[in-house]
Amino acid sequence: MAAFVKCPPARIGQRLEEVDTPSLVLDLDAFERNLAAMKRAVDGRKVRVRPHAKTHKSVDIARRQIADGAIGVCCQKVSEAEALAEGGIADLLVSNEVVGAPKLERLAALSKRVKLGVCVDNPENLRQLAALGCELDVYIEIEVGMGRCGIAAGEPAVALAREIARSTKLRFAGLQAYHGRAQHLRTMEERRSVIASAAEKVRQTKALLAKEGIACPIVTGAGSGTFMFEVDSGAWDEIQPGSYVFMDVDYGKNEWAAPLPRFEHALFVLATVMSRPKPEAAIVDAGLKASSVDSGMPGVWQRAGLTYAKASDEHGFVSVAAGERVALGEKLLLVPGHCDPTVNLYDQYVCVRGGKVEALWPVSARGALY
Amino acid sequence: MAAFVKCPPARIGQRLEEVDTPSLVLDLDAFERNLAAMKRAVDGRKVRVRPHAKTHKSVDIARRQIADGAIGVCCQKVSEAEALAEGGIADLLVSNEVVGAPKLERLAALSKRVKLGVCVDNPENLRQLAALGCELDVYIEIEVGMGRCGIAAGEPAVALAREIARSTKLRFAGLQAYHGRAQHLRTMEERRSVIASAAEKVRQTKALLAKEGIACPIVTGAGSGTFMFEVDSGAWDEIQPGSYVFMDVDYGKNEWAAPLPRFEHALFVLATVMSRPKPEAAIVDAGLKASSVDSGMPGVWQRAGLTYAKASDEHGFVSVAAGERVALGEKLLLVPGHCDPTVNLYDQYVCVRGGKVEALWPVSARGALY
Repeated sequence: MAAFVKCPPARIGQRLEEVDTPSLVLDLDAFERNLAAMKRAVDGRKVRVRPHAKTHKSVDIARRQIADGAIGVCCQKVSEAEALAEGGIADLLVSNEVVGAPKLERLAALSKRVKLGVCVDNPENLRQLAALGCELDVYIEIEVGMGRCGIAAGEPAVALAREIARSTKLRFAGLQAYHGRAQHLRTMEERRSVIASAAEKVRQTKALLAKEGIACPIVTGAGSGTFMFEVDSGAWDEIQPGSYVFMDVDYGKNEWAAPLPRFEHALFVLATVMSRPKPEAAIVDAGLKASSVDSGMPGVWQRAGLTYAKASDEHGFVSVAAGERVALGEKLLLVPGHCDPTVNLYDQYVCVRGGKVEALWPVSARGALY
Repeated sequence: MAAFVKCPPARIGQRLEEVDTPSLVLDLDAFERNLAAMKRAVDGRKVRVRPHAKTHKSVDIARRQIADGAIGVCCQKVSEAEALAEGGIADLLVSNEVVGAPKLERLAALSKRVKLGVCVDNPENLRQLAALGCELDVYIEIEVGMGRCGIAAGEPAVALAREIARSTKLRFAGLQAYHGRAQHLRTMEERRSVIASAAEKVRQTKALLAKEGIACPIVTGAGSGTFMFEVDSGAWDEIQPGSYVFMDVDYGKNEWAAPLPRFEHALFVLATVMSRPKPEAAIVDAGLKASSVDSGMPGVWQRAGLTYAKASDEHGFVSVAAGERVALGEKLLLVPGHCDPTVNLYDQYVCVRGGKVEALWPVSARGALY
């Protein structure tokens, strides 16, 4: 039996208040201002933008980013890359290690259809990539302080680059240097300092590569919370911001100041008040299957008296301040705590402008985990 | 553009080690033992079983539960009920309030196809249900201590029942009395005590209804962590356990003793070790888009030296005890922290028996939020 095809939650032309809930709502004006803010921030700078599609998983959004000057997009999974390639995105970097026979086979097949890059941090995995016999851009992921994947900067990375140079099909494309933990350090100063230390690791590795006569075409990395530090350092050639298109509660808690531009909340979960059990509580129909709570609760948009206090699977408990009016059936906009895993819960974006539904965009790579 | 249809992560007959990752794996033997344990627990007791399909969202699992004696299933969303009805499940209770025009229209349409129940906790919502003009079983949800939806037990509930009795089409089917918070109180004694207090509220409301001459056909409620307390109380006619088919880390932390049967972990996320950055760390390809972390981190199944310590979007950080061997590419089974929202991340169950893939079952109501 095939999975049941769900009715879309909205029709084009509907007013926002008519949209079924919970729905993933994209405010197109705010989204476009975020795209423009990114474009202005890097204007005239010697850096390529390769936005991270793990955030949006959307062919439509990737197309707009590319129309705005992005060289392509990156993603975290081969299946995400497949979904984006299916939608016509032709330059893709899997900014992650790809391990396991089924994934490697799919990577090889995809490399014949699009310009494709992949990361490596391990000699055994590198030999598996070489054994595929296909043309691939291979980036060495170096550990720059995040404490996740990545080979140690300096000599260990250079040893891996030497192995790539010996391969006939693989091309050493450069370094992946991303500091994920840095993105949510709250003060500008903390983020600046951590990226300065990451830049040092990048420079040290590049210097060793140069000494060996190994060209390092591109250093790629950086996220929405730090990317201008990477740009200003001069050590990166390409940035991978993802969340800037949407923002979320977690990013909203960061200090934002120059050199980073301001981005706006553009992504929301529309919810309905489905129960008013007591004056101080409103229950909404959006729980943790509708808005990921891994980085904290959603915020209630432009309703200072309402606080989304806790989530269960299908319900959200909203505290109501004394004197605040909330009607049964009222729609509330929630700002997701964390945009990436929230998007992954939905099959489509309900794209809204001026209070009306302008488009429905599929979440093209929803559930693309493989 | 339609969403990209993903390749399934497994083929029937494959060995578990060959399955792509991260995947949602159902151990059919353990699952069937859980079904049998439930059947034995209620054997000869005067109670109907209406398992909660919000946990599994699966037509295949609902069918097996019904074959095992369940009267039907319940779910939390109209769209879940639609997906299950599409798969032939004919007796459905939306154990939740349904608020908002699009949902009410769909509820009315569905009521013409299956035996359908719905909950209400508010007179305004009741009038909306009555205005649909369709035949519906209406249950009054009473608040029994969870602090979420539900009208106060006693007179307020009876006033609502009087209104239902005046409707020509709606049928007062009884009370929904579910104490969600009780399910994860850790000791048997805490859970027993909280359900005793919920039973008091049920009895009080039933007595008032009887005094008014309003028949209360069914009291429904209870979850996997408490259902035998509800059964033993004699105050419930129907139980709604969901998680017992799978179990998870959170339920595993409960004290389990008679009168509750033991259930086994039957649901897993299969993950691959994709990076070994240092001896004390293994990075797996299953992060918080692969296993919900709202109720804590996943457990590593039958590998005492390994601890899943933290999750990012697509990565899990597994701490490796000294001397423990973990190879790059090795597959690990993870026990989800919380089964319901984890299932909702996947398009299919990879059903395994004796180490081989026996079936792929769609998560029929995945993303059915509406």
